[in-house]
Amino acid sequence: MSRIAYVNGQYRALRDACVNIEDRGYQFADGVYEVCEVRGGKLVDLPRHLARLERSLSELRIAMPMPFASLAVVMHEVVRRNRVSYGLIYLQITRGVAHRDHAFPPGSVKPALVVTAKSLNFAKNQNAAAHGIGVITVPENRWPRVDIKSVSLLPNVLAKQLAKEQGAYEAWFVDREGYVTEGSSSNAWIVTSDGRVVTRSADSGILAGITRAVLLDVLAALQIRLEERPFTPEEAYGAAEAFVTASTQIVMPVVSIDGKPIGGGIPGPLAAKLREHFHQFSAFS
Amino acid sequence: MSRIAYVNGQYRALRDACVNIEDRGYQFADGVYEVCEVRGGKLVDLPRHLARLERSLSELRIAMPMPFASLAVVMHEVVRRNRVSYGLIYLQITRGVAHRDHAFPPGSVKPALVVTAKSLNFAKNQNAAAHGIGVITVPENRWPRVDIKSVSLLPNVLAKQLAKEQGAYEAWFVDREGYVTEGSSSNAWIVTSDGRVVTRSADSGILAGITRAVLLDVLAALQIRLEERPFTPEEAYGAAEAFVTASTQIVMPVVSIDGKPIGGGIPGPLAAKLREHFHQFSAFS
Repeated sequence: MSRIAYVNGQYRALRDACVNIEDRGYQFADGVYEVCEVRGGKLVDLPRHLARLERSLSELRIAMPMPFASLAVVMHEVVRRNRVSYGLIYLQITRGVAHRDHAFPPGSVKPALVVTAKSLNFAKNQNAAAHGIGVITVPENRWPRVDIKSVSLLPNVLAKQLAKEQGAYEAWFVDREGYVTEGSSSNAWIVTSDGRVVTRSADSGILAGITRAVLLDVLAALQIRLEERPFTPEEAYGAAEAFVTASTQIVMPVVSIDGKPIGGGIPGPLAAKLREHFHQFSAFS
Repeated sequence: MSRIAYVNGQYRALRDACVNIEDRGYQFADGVYEVCEVRGGKLVDLPRHLARLERSLSELRIAMPMPFASLAVVMHEVVRRNRVSYGLIYLQITRGVAHRDHAFPPGSVKPALVVTAKSLNFAKNQNAAAHGIGVITVPENRWPRVDIKSVSLLPNVLAKQLAKEQGAYEAWFVDREGYVTEGSSSNAWIVTSDGRVVTRSADSGILAGITRAVLLDVLAALQIRLEERPFTPEEAYGAAEAFVTASTQIVMPVVSIDGKPIGGGIPGPLAAKLREHFHQFSAFS
């Protein structure tokens, strides 16, 4: 079955789904995106994703292409047409199509909207979580506005590729002060030897992850101690556990950082527990 | 007459010229571009632009989609089909179309190539040069790899828009050390009271501009003293002249910086002279 995409008002076979070459997403990375997990055909934490989307758009002064309710209808329809039970939905909004000029186009130019969905292999993801992933660290080289979930992802691409070439799955950026900011497509966490969970505050240097936010609720409910503060790679090397969070990763254990085994090189019990309980705290729609 | 674009092997009316929504240029800003001036239907300094293109692609490990000679044929054909006598040609190469995943796609994925051309109003540009432009300064917030001419231009878009809203035409980025790096779409230059031309070295913090490189030849030929070093906005406020260089701007006089008049608020004689002599040192093909 060919995949179906929503593109500016039409549902299209993915192979025929296209945008104009003067879409500002293509020429300027002038757009934002969201990725939601799909479980049992439902969108996970959609309201939080839409709230973040609205913030990203607002920061770039791109108009919402349609009201939230309509957007949710489109997203559900894309999930339905692609028959996704478990997988993800991807949504991208750009400033629209206009003759190339760095400055914003006239207000008459409408934002462009693309929505795709795809099935993921649940067993494969569970298996990955059972084995854990490797992480490398790389110097932070993204622009400071990583709080905006923009498609300006070239440094993330290069970092992820470097991780892959070194036999790892994710790269953690390390800022000038020597602290981990976040991964190329995930938030970074460690667990101290006395069971405190540590992650950087969303106030600076990272994207306010939705999975991260839900996990804070999980930690509070399970009465697990949290420290929102930066940590260094050195502290992470000696951590009891480490993990990353992202919409389709949920809580993914990290078993090595820069080739050094974490927690004996196997997934830790707390990460497994958080992963297990996570969806009790998610909103399904 | 509708404009014509070359897109992955086909010439299309611009309104029908499209790329797949999974082109990595659209989802990851994973691509590079070049802009060449067109004069008398000829491409200005094409070999230098192609050499820089090759370097940008090499840094990102994107393959050239076709040999230089073939690319030049396509570019000339796009100029011809659009009947451009004076104007610009825009070329964009991305890593190609692949299901969304940050890491590089398999080697079987071919790079995507888009070429467009458009006519510009010569009299209007000359008039702009006769009056000069305003510049504002903004904090540098781009990633460090601005030596790669990538489409990751969101900070440039925001800076240019800010300039426009403040009644200026260009924004100069200022680094942490307080020095001007370059403009959002141009290189930055000043002239000292004793006639030395100052611009930042292309070794760090800027794109190696082609117009910049040709202008260095012009300066040498005209025996004008050059200092390749960074300068601060404060030094620029007190400069005898200031100007920017870019492929379609050539040498564009700056008559105000952050609202402060430069050189009495009118274009300087040296900028005019350099603009006048520039194309004697260009290669036309």
